[in-house]
Amino acid sequence: MTDLNITRVDATEADFDTVLDSMLAWESVSDAQMQSTVAEIIAEVRQRGDAALMEYSAKFDRFFVNSMAELTLDAEAIEAAFNRLPEDKQQALRVSAQRVEDYHRHQVAESWHYTDETGVVLGQQVTALDRVGIYVPGGVAPLASSVIMNAMPAKVAGVSDIIMTTPAPDGKVSDFVLGAAFVAGVSEVYLLGGAQAVAALAYGTETVPNVDKIVGPGNAFVATAKQQVFGKVGIDMIAGPSEILVVCDGKTNPDWIAMDLFSQAEHSHDAQAILISHDRDYLDQVQASIEKLLPTMERQDTILQSLNDRGLFIRVKVLDDAKALINRIAPEHLELSIDDPESWLADIRHAGAIFMGRHTSEALGDYCAGPNHVLPTSGTARFFSPLGVYDFQKRSSLIGASATAASELGQVVSVLARGELLTAHARSAEQRIDD
Amino acid sequence: MTDLNITRVDATEADFDTVLDSMLAWESVSDAQMQSTVAEIIAEVRQRGDAALMEYSAKFDRFFVNSMAELTLDAEAIEAAFNRLPEDKQQALRVSAQRVEDYHRHQVAESWHYTDETGVVLGQQVTALDRVGIYVPGGVAPLASSVIMNAMPAKVAGVSDIIMTTPAPDGKVSDFVLGAAFVAGVSEVYLLGGAQAVAALAYGTETVPNVDKIVGPGNAFVATAKQQVFGKVGIDMIAGPSEILVVCDGKTNPDWIAMDLFSQAEHSHDAQAILISHDRDYLDQVQASIEKLLPTMERQDTILQSLNDRGLFIRVKVLDDAKALINRIAPEHLELSIDDPESWLADIRHAGAIFMGRHTSEALGDYCAGPNHVLPTSGTARFFSPLGVYDFQKRSSLIGASATAASELGQVVSVLARGELLTAHARSAEQRIDD
Repeated sequence: MTDLNITRVDATEADFDTVLDSMLAWESVSDAQMQSTVAEIIAEVRQRGDAALMEYSAKFDRFFVNSMAELTLDAEAIEAAFNRLPEDKQQALRVSAQRVEDYHRHQVAESWHYTDETGVVLGQQVTALDRVGIYVPGGVAPLASSVIMNAMPAKVAGVSDIIMTTPAPDGKVSDFVLGAAFVAGVSEVYLLGGAQAVAALAYGTETVPNVDKIVGPGNAFVATAKQQVFGKVGIDMIAGPSEILVVCDGKTNPDWIAMDLFSQAEHSHDAQAILISHDRDYLDQVQASIEKLLPTMERQDTILQSLNDRGLFIRVKVLDDAKALINRIAPEHLELSIDDPESWLADIRHAGAIFMGRHTSEALGDYCAGPNHVLPTSGTARFFSPLGVYDFQKRSSLIGASATAASELGQVVSVLARGELLTAHARSAEQRIDD
Repeated sequence: MTDLNITRVDATEADFDTVLDSMLAWESVSDAQMQSTVAEIIAEVRQRGDAALMEYSAKFDRFFVNSMAELTLDAEAIEAAFNRLPEDKQQALRVSAQRVEDYHRHQVAESWHYTDETGVVLGQQVTALDRVGIYVPGGVAPLASSVIMNAMPAKVAGVSDIIMTTPAPDGKVSDFVLGAAFVAGVSEVYLLGGAQAVAALAYGTETVPNVDKIVGPGNAFVATAKQQVFGKVGIDMIAGPSEILVVCDGKTNPDWIAMDLFSQAEHSHDAQAILISHDRDYLDQVQASIEKLLPTMERQDTILQSLNDRGLFIRVKVLDDAKALINRIAPEHLELSIDDPESWLADIRHAGAIFMGRHTSEALGDYCAGPNHVLPTSGTARFFSPLGVYDFQKRSSLIGASATAASELGQVVSVLARGELLTAHARSAEQRIDD
């Protein structure tokens, strides 16, 4: 096993900015070969529909079927999978789904309108999307929580048809994932993966209905396909590797912090775990906890590579200096392992989710605290938000002018539209001006 | 001049669905040459900064400068441009800005939090983006309204730094556009256009600060550049040609409707104007108005081509049948030129903006009614919303668990995380479970 070697830096050192920038740097590589492979898959699915989907399932998932019915699970099949789960998993999925639902109800936007002093009715009508698609990756880990986090905001928004696709390598699909689909209100599941699943959701086939928006994580093929169909349908944000920033005053059990850092590092070799403290001794203690605990971890190889490649311990002069670093890093997950985390909130401008206090592990948020675990990564919390109900609602502007108001405002339109040389616009408004 | 030849179809005919689908079809062409030209421009600006910008201004805009100062307008210069405008334009810009500001204030989202029965503090902190960039096209028409519509939601959201870029062909820039920037609260203007302006906003140069989000319309170079920098920064929606769907009960002055259709058709040859009525005679009357008025229009060539290529008159059996067509078309602009438009709202699921009643011309919404004129096109109102304050705010989830709550919920995390084979997640939560 390679030695542990986490980069440590002092924020007062001259080269600190350079080191931090280079550690934070992460850019998705756009590969021309990948782009053209995905474009071809999408074109095939658009042209040949179900036939192409069944061929791709055989080719990529070694799942040989004679009809789309074998790739389709209806509500009954989804419920049956839930019923096959052991009691503790059923209960945990139910608790998670309920808590996520409760939280997301606070995000529902309502329609509104008012009449202004000119006599114009103005407003916004808020409606849910009709039909959405959730992509759930296959692979080793059955991502039940991902199903709940992606489907529940759609359910709360009032989306009537929530479709899920997930690959079934060798024809196998996890009851845990299907059970999560049951508690999250998924309408039907198609056992499809990769770019072909995204293409089917975007354009529809004889069997798979086309959706209005596609969300959920996936490999490079899935991510590229989502980018290519963006505009035809909506997509969620573009996700990079997961990250955590822990700020600690030195009074939290260092084993706790070590394990919190591991919980991000275990995601992938390019995940990023950063710890900030003013206390050098405390950073040493966490380092010692990491050395002690790492050999006990199932995913120690991934954790080690992540910590060595992208892990970072930052010593600040005083803990308050961490605030500026938080806003500069704009972390996906921020743990404030300090005494009075609420007092910091007003100074925090950019973070996906803020975990307040020593007892609030980031893992709570991943599974069952209530807020969404789909969060902006790689500094994009500067402009992206957590996945939410607002991603599954859309708005229509409402404008209703009385004859008087149309006459009055028509004169303003006339000046502006003629200034822009758009005379049909001008005359459309002018003809409603009273003589 | 080519003859007027608007497609007319009856919704009761057998081939109606096919005709409608083919008339609505519109897909942006993604050109590999364009992609690579834009990628090269972006790379040049990232590598050589201001020097590249000055070279591109000379090459593309015939604007030869010795320093970036000549491409930079500060707040004083922006105000001076406003002061050079004639009184009627100043006044019209002020009215428009004020009305747009008033409407958008209704969209501001506030932070919220609550403590649930488990003792977990849950909430969402809403903050404005720090700095945004507005792209304003050059060309023949000085798009003052576009400046107001793109900048004002950012201003209302509380964005502290609103930067505008606009090309200055031959060194010329419109006082009307700069005057709009003044009333809309733009902080500074850079006289830059094309993909190079987008690159400068996304990555920053020695002079141009990098922004968090780029919004505003542009030509194919600009649109392609925005797609390429998406992820590094946020962007607004992908816009297609403008469209209008007018539903009329046959009781509105046909000249009014003809001019309303012109007001979209004058935008571009691929803009789309559709009229639906149950009344064949009325459709004939609007046709006659179009024939009468078209020769009087400044932009008659564009209008004629738009109406011939993409214009559509649809006769429905009864007017209520229009509701299903509205939701199928999901129009950018919907004019309900009928007696009681409010009674239709509950049935309308997809539309960018709804103009209610005979007096509410679409042009009112373009300039000064209050709602935004940046709206989803080409059926994307199924999942996109008008540009709004929500595009310039983002959210951070808040989670604060007491020791008791962390212990209780830790047991749920344990089951779910172990079910997903993510044992560091599990142990991170488990270590906070009370013995």
